[in-house]
Amino acid sequence: MHTPGDVETIERDDPTIVEPTDAIIRLTATCICGSDLHPYHGREDVDELLMGHEYLGVVEAVGDAVESVAVGDPVIGSFAWSDNTCEICRSGYQSKCVHGGFFHGSIGTQAELARIPQADGTLVKLPEVPTADLVPHLLAASDVLGTGWFAAEAAQVGPGKTVAVVGDGAVGLLAVLAAKRMGAETIIAMSKYPDRQALARQFGATHIVEERGEEGIARVKELTDGLGAHSVIEAVGTEESFMQAVGCTRPGGHMGFVGVNNGVLLPGIELFFADIHIHGGPAPVRRQLPQLVDMIYAGEIEPGRVLDLTLPLEQAAEGYRAMDERRAIKVLLTL
Amino acid sequence: MHTPGDVETIERDDPTIVEPTDAIIRLTATCICGSDLHPYHGREDVDELLMGHEYLGVVEAVGDAVESVAVGDPVIGSFAWSDNTCEICRSGYQSKCVHGGFFHGSIGTQAELARIPQADGTLVKLPEVPTADLVPHLLAASDVLGTGWFAAEAAQVGPGKTVAVVGDGAVGLLAVLAAKRMGAETIIAMSKYPDRQALARQFGATHIVEERGEEGIARVKELTDGLGAHSVIEAVGTEESFMQAVGCTRPGGHMGFVGVNNGVLLPGIELFFADIHIHGGPAPVRRQLPQLVDMIYAGEIEPGRVLDLTLPLEQAAEGYRAMDERRAIKVLLTL
Repeated sequence: MHTPGDVETIERDDPTIVEPTDAIIRLTATCICGSDLHPYHGREDVDELLMGHEYLGVVEAVGDAVESVAVGDPVIGSFAWSDNTCEICRSGYQSKCVHGGFFHGSIGTQAELARIPQADGTLVKLPEVPTADLVPHLLAASDVLGTGWFAAEAAQVGPGKTVAVVGDGAVGLLAVLAAKRMGAETIIAMSKYPDRQALARQFGATHIVEERGEEGIARVKELTDGLGAHSVIEAVGTEESFMQAVGCTRPGGHMGFVGVNNGVLLPGIELFFADIHIHGGPAPVRRQLPQLVDMIYAGEIEPGRVLDLTLPLEQAAEGYRAMDERRAIKVLLTL
Repeated sequence: MHTPGDVETIERDDPTIVEPTDAIIRLTATCICGSDLHPYHGREDVDELLMGHEYLGVVEAVGDAVESVAVGDPVIGSFAWSDNTCEICRSGYQSKCVHGGFFHGSIGTQAELARIPQADGTLVKLPEVPTADLVPHLLAASDVLGTGWFAAEAAQVGPGKTVAVVGDGAVGLLAVLAAKRMGAETIIAMSKYPDRQALARQFGATHIVEERGEEGIARVKELTDGLGAHSVIEAVGTEESFMQAVGCTRPGGHMGFVGVNNGVLLPGIELFFADIHIHGGPAPVRRQLPQLVDMIYAGEIEPGRVLDLTLPLEQAAEGYRAMDERRAIKVLLTL
């Protein structure tokens, strides 16, 4: 991304092993994330950003210190690298690893090849080379499914709970799927687009609320005895969506937020008087990947349904446009 | 409080029973809260505010529907009234009761008599008429101890944890006491005033950090292997104190915030990348009162040490000045 809104697929030198803990992977496929639209819209500084942070591939080379994966292994990882051994990783927050970092902007994975730092900690070996039908599901696990899953965990979703989901992008829709898998009784998807409403229902939504802001909050309260939902997921990243999620949460309830909220200012006093639990941030997808991969290989979940447009990598710019114009929820890029 | 900074003790009509669920109490003593300085400094609209929300007294009259307390009973309550039976109360969030409200501004308890709404739910009967030495400890339980206790719970303080406390007012100091009682291993009090540091140490602080902001965060990280504290308590209510608390919390850690943060705007992206749990708001002190009262009658805790200046109610204005000028941590008003 040269500047906001200006995306181009270019030729670059192949990546090489820099640290002995690195691996190089050849990507099977990659995709465009809703969060890639933040720099696209200029909500983040852009100066020749290397784009992409979701990936699935085959190991092409490994550094001398890499032990857990070998050349030829099919692998997946998340949008953050991590050693998976430090105290923060062991506590379950691999996206904040003390030796970690983010692919976004530094190592773009919307590419044929990518360098993977901390390969032993970052990569998860797949049980076998995935068949073509599994590829979109696995790619979803690399970020949006893991992020939606974390949001549901952060919102303390569980059996018998009422859940509201703010945001009908890929993450919001997959948070619905996660909430369903976690046993939520009532799942309210807040969405005004019919195609996304339909997918939300397929994933387990029991109610749709089209209204936003104060009206949306009022509708969620009507559905919850006037109290608000036990668990609310914020998957957009604006002040409006954040405060809508706060307002939908009952006192003492839990809100999980995963929308990247660049430039957003939140009114402290409203957070104070809400009296709710708030947890969120970059999801520790690495922690969840083994479990998610197993569910996908077992055919229990089909998160790849959010990838509703497929284009070759060379047409990445058109993929960004399609997502920007809401012609696509999420774009898969083939190689 | 006529206008910000202009406090006067005036004669008013005695309160009367309005609802059958009301009681009238004659106060034994009352006090001034750090949060009373927010309107004093104009951070809250002030137009003839009735001040005071901490109280201890004897029941003077009860409405027809009141069953659990009777005329002559010694009682205590918190800064919020609550029915203690609604779903929100039963989930432990009495300060957000569906039939609740706040004394601050509506029913001032810096007074000889006060009307107590929802008396059955709001008031806790004391085991016996308190001796004079117990009065300050009980008054502290009415808000600042309960609030500090809730902050420590919200920050998930527990055995073996490292705790940092931002704020050395009454609430911050009593959060130190709470953390000690909950078994925290390391308790870092962030304070630059020697008298408050001394009280923090008496209450259980193991370390004092005088620096604030980025320097304060760096010092806390030095004390915690570079990671930040497991549990951080924010007890001030400014953007600086809030973000200092966020910065002191390790990824995946818990921050409890109880400072009333009127007019504060919080940078969403910093909350996002912190990847921490945040919980706070008006403390459900009613939930904790029975336990706190028992500990005080048993002589296990002496939270009233934060009340370091005693004045008659008529000199309330001087009490506000003393707290504003930091000549006193907290002022007890006698009747």
